[in-house]
Amino acid sequence: MSNFGCTDLRLVNPYEVAFREARSAVNAGYVLESAREFSTLAEAVADCTLAVGTTSLGPRVLEHPLRRLELGARLLRNHSATGSAALVFGSEKYGLGVEDMAHCHWLMRIPTREEHGSMNLGQAVAVCLYELARNPVIARQKPPERQPASAAELERLTALLMDVLEASGYVHARVAGSTTLKTRRLVRRMQLNAHDAEIWLGMLRQVQWKLGQSTR
Amino acid sequence: MSNFGCTDLRLVNPYEVAFREARSAVNAGYVLESAREFSTLAEAVADCTLAVGTTSLGPRVLEHPLRRLELGARLLRNHSATGSAALVFGSEKYGLGVEDMAHCHWLMRIPTREEHGSMNLGQAVAVCLYELARNPVIARQKPPERQPASAAELERLTALLMDVLEASGYVHARVAGSTTLKTRRLVRRMQLNAHDAEIWLGMLRQVQWKLGQSTR
Repeated sequence: MSNFGCTDLRLVNPYEVAFREARSAVNAGYVLESAREFSTLAEAVADCTLAVGTTSLGPRVLEHPLRRLELGARLLRNHSATGSAALVFGSEKYGLGVEDMAHCHWLMRIPTREEHGSMNLGQAVAVCLYELARNPVIARQKPPERQPASAAELERLTALLMDVLEASGYVHARVAGSTTLKTRRLVRRMQLNAHDAEIWLGMLRQVQWKLGQSTR
Repeated sequence: MSNFGCTDLRLVNPYEVAFREARSAVNAGYVLESAREFSTLAEAVADCTLAVGTTSLGPRVLEHPLRRLELGARLLRNHSATGSAALVFGSEKYGLGVEDMAHCHWLMRIPTREEHGSMNLGQAVAVCLYELARNPVIARQKPPERQPASAAELERLTALLMDVLEASGYVHARVAGSTTLKTRRLVRRMQLNAHDAEIWLGMLRQVQWKLGQSTR
C-alpha cells in the first residue's frame, strides 16, 4: 500500500493473532498503525461513495458486473476525483463471499490465466494498487535516452577499428575493402550512444598504440 | 509466476533452508519442483539472449539504462517472440548488486512512489509478471455489458412507479404532473439494464397489487 501511496487500511474482523503480530515493511509503519477495525464490511465502507470488490472468479458465476483490472482501475481513478472509493479484498483462503460482494457496486478481476486464477492476497493487492497508481500517460512517454552517437563518430570508430584489425593481422591489406564495409555495418549495429562511442575510441586508441609499440 | 503463465524459475545460491521449506500455492507445485539452482547469475542466464534486471533505485545512481516497467515489459514481450529472456530479481534484503547488474542488458523499475521505492520481493515479481502478461490490446476493448433497458421499458417502469406512488399516498393527484417528470428523470438516472428493469417491474407490480388489496 505504501509503495503506491495508499494509506487508509480498514480491516473487517481481522484474525487478531495475525493482526497483532503483523510487522510492517520499512517506511510503512504508519499504514498498520493507523489501520482501523470494523465488525462488518457495511460499516467499513459506509463513508465511501464507491466500493469495488475483487475476485478470481469468472463472469459466469457472478451476479455482479465484472471488469478487467485495467478498465476497473481507470473507472476507480476517475471516481476518486469526486468521491472516496474502497477497494475490497476477501480473505486469503476464501476470497470475497456472496454477501460481501453485495456491498460492492461492481467487481474487478486481475487477468490471471484461467488454469490458475486465484492469487496470493498480498500479491493481488500489490498488482491492483500498481495498476491504480500507474499513469498511462507517463508510460506512453519515451524515457530520456542517452544521445546516440553521430555518423561522424561512428565513422571515426570504424576507421580506427580497421587500423587496429590491420595492425593485428586480422585483416590483410588485399581484402581490406570488403572488410571495411562489413566493419562499418558492424559498428552501426552496435547502436552506440555518444558516451559509449567515446569509450570505444579511447580503448581502441590504446590498443592501436600498443600494437604500434610491439611491431617496432 | 504460475498466475501469469511463467514456469522457468532459476535460483542463484538460494538460502537452502528457505528453499527446502518453501511451499507452493495450490496449482503451482510444478514451478518449485522444476526450479533449477545455479551458483552464479552468469550460469543462470547463459542460454538467454536478453537479461533484464529489476531495481528500486533511480537512474542517477545507475550505470545502466533504466526503463519504466510498462515500456520494459513491452520490449521484453517483443524480444520473447524471437529469443528467450530472463527477468532478474535480487535478494529480498539487498536487491540486485552492481556485479549482478553488469550481467543485465538493461534495468526496469516499478513506478513506486519516491518516498517508498523498495518493494516486497514476491509483490514485485507479481507486479512485473502482471505487466508482462497483460494484453494492452484486450484491455482497450470494452467488456460486454448487459443490454441497457429500452426507452419503452423505462417508460413502463415510470408509469407503474407513478401508480404505486399515487396509490401509496406519496403523490397527490393535483401535483402528479410535475412529479411524473421528476420520476421519469429519476428512472433514467438509474441506468438500468434490460434484466434489472424487468426485476423492478415485477417488484412494483407486486407492490401495486398489494396496495390495491389493502385499500379495498
